[in-house]
Amino acid sequence: MAALEPVLTAPQSKGHLSVARLSRWWYVACRSKQLGTKPIARTVLGVPMVLFRTSDGRPAALLDRCPHRNVPLSLGRVLGNGRLECPYHGWQFDGTGRCRLVPGLCSEGSGDCDDVPGRRTPAFAVRERDGFVWVYPSADEEPRTEPPPLPHAADAGYTTVVRELEMESTLHAAVENALDVPHTAFLHRGLFRGNGERHEIKVVVRAIPRGVEAEYIGEPRPPGLAGRLLSPSGGIVEHWDRFLLPSIAQVEYKLGTENHLLVTSLCTPVSDFTTHMFAVVSFRLRVPGSFVRPLLTPVAMRILRQDASILRVQASTIRRFGGEQYMSTEIDVLGPHIWRLLKQAEADALPASEETTTLRELRLAV
Amino acid sequence: MAALEPVLTAPQSKGHLSVARLSRWWYVACRSKQLGTKPIARTVLGVPMVLFRTSDGRPAALLDRCPHRNVPLSLGRVLGNGRLECPYHGWQFDGTGRCRLVPGLCSEGSGDCDDVPGRRTPAFAVRERDGFVWVYPSADEEPRTEPPPLPHAADAGYTTVVRELEMESTLHAAVENALDVPHTAFLHRGLFRGNGERHEIKVVVRAIPRGVEAEYIGEPRPPGLAGRLLSPSGGIVEHWDRFLLPSIAQVEYKLGTENHLLVTSLCTPVSDFTTHMFAVVSFRLRVPGSFVRPLLTPVAMRILRQDASILRVQASTIRRFGGEQYMSTEIDVLGPHIWRLLKQAEADALPASEETTTLRELRLAV
Amino acid sequence: MAALEPVLTAPQSKGHLSVARLSRWWYVACRSKQLGTKPIARTVLGVPMVLFRTSDGRPAALLDRCPHRNVPLSLGRVLGNGRLECPYHGWQFDGTGRCRLVPGLCSEGSGDCDDVPGRRTPAFAVRERDGFVWVYPSADEEPRTEPPPLPHAADAGYTTVVRELEMESTLHAAVENALDVPHTAFLHRGLFRGNGERHEIKVVVRAIPRGVEAEYIGEPRPPGLAGRLLSPSGGIVEHWDRFLLPSIAQVEYKLGTENHLLVTSLCTPVSDFTTHMFAVVSFRLRVPGSFVRPLLTPVAMRILRQDASILRVQASTIRRFGGEQYMSTEIDVLGPHIWRLLKQAEADALPASEETTTLRELRLAV
Repeated sequence: MAALEPVLTAPQSKGHLSVARLSRWWYVACRSKQLGTKPIARTVLGVPMVLFRTSDGRPAALLDRCPHRNVPLSLGRVLGNGRLECPYHGWQFDGTGRCRLVPGLCSEGSGDCDDVPGRRTPAFAVRERDGFVWVYPSADEEPRTEPPPLPHAADAGYTTVVRELEMESTLHAAVENALDVPHTAFLHRGLFRGNGERHEIKVVVRAIPRGVEAEYIGEPRPPGLAGRLLSPSGGIVEHWDRFLLPSIAQVEYKLGTENHLLVTSLCTPVSDFTTHMFAVVSFRLRVPGSFVRPLLTPVAMRILRQDASILRVQASTIRRFGGEQYMSTEIDVLGPHIWRLLKQAEADALPASEETTTLRELRLAV
Repeated sequence: MAALEPVLTAPQSKGHLSVARLSRWWYVACRSKQLGTKPIARTVLGVPMVLFRTSDGRPAALLDRCPHRNVPLSLGRVLGNGRLECPYHGWQFDGTGRCRLVPGLCSEGSGDCDDVPGRRTPAFAVRERDGFVWVYPSADEEPRTEPPPLPHAADAGYTTVVRELEMESTLHAAVENALDVPHTAFLHRGLFRGNGERHEIKVVVRAIPRGVEAEYIGEPRPPGLAGRLLSPSGGIVEHWDRFLLPSIAQVEYKLGTENHLLVTSLCTPVSDFTTHMFAVVSFRLRVPGSFVRPLLTPVAMRILRQDASILRVQASTIRRFGGEQYMSTEIDVLGPHIWRLLKQAEADALPASEETTTLRELRLAV
Repeated sequence: MAALEPVLTAPQSKGHLSVARLSRWWYVACRSKQLGTKPIARTVLGVPMVLFRTSDGRPAALLDRCPHRNVPLSLGRVLGNGRLECPYHGWQFDGTGRCRLVPGLCSEGSGDCDDVPGRRTPAFAVRERDGFVWVYPSADEEPRTEPPPLPHAADAGYTTVVRELEMESTLHAAVENALDVPHTAFLHRGLFRGNGERHEIKVVVRAIPRGVEAEYIGEPRPPGLAGRLLSPSGGIVEHWDRFLLPSIAQVEYKLGTENHLLVTSLCTPVSDFTTHMFAVVSFRLRVPGSFVRPLLTPVAMRILRQDASILRVQASTIRRFGGEQYMSTEIDVLGPHIWRLLKQAEADALPASEETTTLRELRLAV
């Protein structure tokens, strides 16, 4: 669409950079509770959007630029009739982006103005589910898919905590980091892993529909603070790391039949080097959730902030050098697969298969 | 002129932007009272200038770069002999830009140095009138025009107030805003218009010499605070909005024979996206000026700051998208005409006519 | 080297700029005492480096980017074994840039990893002498030269003071400034020169090996505060200014046989427009050094800060105009010679002669 072209082609980066721009996928724009009676501004894949609720309470998303004099509609207000009013000249838009009133314009009658095409502002498909507002950043297009469900997020047997963090990082680097095991012993030394002796475990990497998964077999309970909270008595854990296109990183832990922890990081590429992360932590534990939650949350946030900090200096170094120059080993278990999937999806060349197949087995010392 | 080329061609913007660069016109550089015994720096159309007063008290304007080692002359001082001294090596310049002394240089004799061409700094034509210092930002060129007079600015029957504001905005957007009626009911809601019911009035648009004018006929006194101050008893106003090339926006109100208000906004394009506005407010009212002034000034400044704020987000959105994409209606009365005049002037293709002709009539609800 | 190419070719400047990039020369990275048990980051000629001391206490310098995931190694730590550990995944590097351990990687055995070439990080030659750590910013190259000695820096008969300052300036502009006499009467008015009447003196300019020198003959003791401290009773001084490739500015003063002052400014081009200056002031005076030092140091620092300030506005003006446009006279004694030497060195076209020859004689009023 011509109106968006300048946003998407204006290069925010150059050279050899692991930047993928998948515009025909769903991304979380905000949490449901963040969208009330006022319009809010969000940016997805470099596209500025205004979100607001129409008179039926449903969320709508428009390009955040009034077609009249190009000021952000997000600085306006939502009227009682559910229309969004531009703050500059009061043009009114409905949830489909159609201009319904040009105040002061007499030549077209006293009521709503005609549906002049140039007065529309592009609209984006929106869905609200599981407490999140999802957008589809390809303007004026009806998606053929729906946003994914969040397992256990609405399950009464589980405690669910949501935290947000903005990473100054490419989507790829943020997702790789969220699913990377080896860094935890160093970057999060003492918090997560890295306190005691090392154990050699087995890793199975599998292709899954629109994603990739690594299963860690024979992993002892992580010795750090987080592990001790989850399982004071130790034991073997079951552990899966998953990437789901376009931007979901999921970590699942099971300790016996009682303890189940699922961290689903919904990542939104704000721009090439900014990734907004909504971390959905759902757990059912031997100990009550209300007891664990106040202990676990600060530790989890500290881990997330350490990740945000290393991702920021990584992005800054990459930009300084004009691109990445990565040297991977086999224990960079998922990163290269994530990159391959992103590039395949960008080229609209994803494998059609819905089956799960084993890609590789390897050993890793944790 | 080669020395200026880098300044003028270094693009501060790209794409489809309503930026006009009219370098052969007069602009206000500063108020007379701002130019005392010290040199000051001003930028007009991207050209850095130093202004100072020579020994006869007359203002001079030079390119703000010493030809020797390229430091800004505006950081130097004015000597007793009326010359401007560079702060680095003490080179002395007169008001014409000629270097009159290179301290320490023996080979050329003990007195003033010869007039070596490469030691000149480009100079700009300057005029001082009505309390303003005007410059002509085309270096070393004698203008064939003079700065315009300011009606009533020196009229004893009028009270005149001058206020300054820097707009982060193109010249075109700032001038269109200053002469735009429909936005006042929304952006300045309660202050200016927009409090009560709407009235349909007639607008006549006229071409005037080097400008365009709109006359508003049948307009009731604006219901907002500003209107109530001007005319507590209501009544019909006479109202003209005028644009005069290259950068003057003038709003004139008459209420009966007693009340006359003239707001002349002298705009200076500092750079493509920065416009410095000198608002000259002259009025003669039924109530004493000394009574109105302290009431009117804060309201006027609040209106100007609201304009500056919306212009800033407009400019930021335009830059983010790489250019404007405006959808005008007929009640964007002057904006498109202003743009046409700016482009005609830039192409040196202004119509020669000195006559006033009606361009269009329309109706507008205010 | 391909890995560095983006850093060196990414233009930090454009147009006609007096920027020379001499990468096969020695530069001071830091003072010896600044490099302790923690790694530190320094940038030389745009190349980010991490410096650390290996287990024998010797300094090492590597490219400040882990080859694995490109985070800065300078944010890591030095281990007891003298290796530098990356903060992200714990990769370990020795002083030659070789990766000695990839934690968690089982497939290559439990000990040190093989020397996989892609896991190396480029290294830079380093020397430590006279209290400074010098680096050679051409990666993985063994220099055929050594850093220059600092005369009198270790001489017990001399008092030596070192001060640092970061100049926002090209190397050329910083060095010209350090060796320029005429500006002292203006920029440093009252501190250094410029208080009394002017004296005409003789200047002899000589080519010296890899440099240029100016001798000032018949110069009276500078009348400013600095001069009065050095020689209360006045007298004739002997004075030499020297430039030594690639970036040393040296000022030498003798007053009679008793007083000797040597200011050697070791300049490091951090980037095209940032120059880090290590000023080494060595003196032997009629009055005790312990008496002069607390008086002289604040005056010297004030002079240096005035220079830094004028260089900053000079660089800013040059960038604004897209390049220099200098108009020199014969009393710009060394600047043009310095520029010629920098360009000859950059083109690897320095004259082979080791002789000192007179280039020019002139007169200058100080």
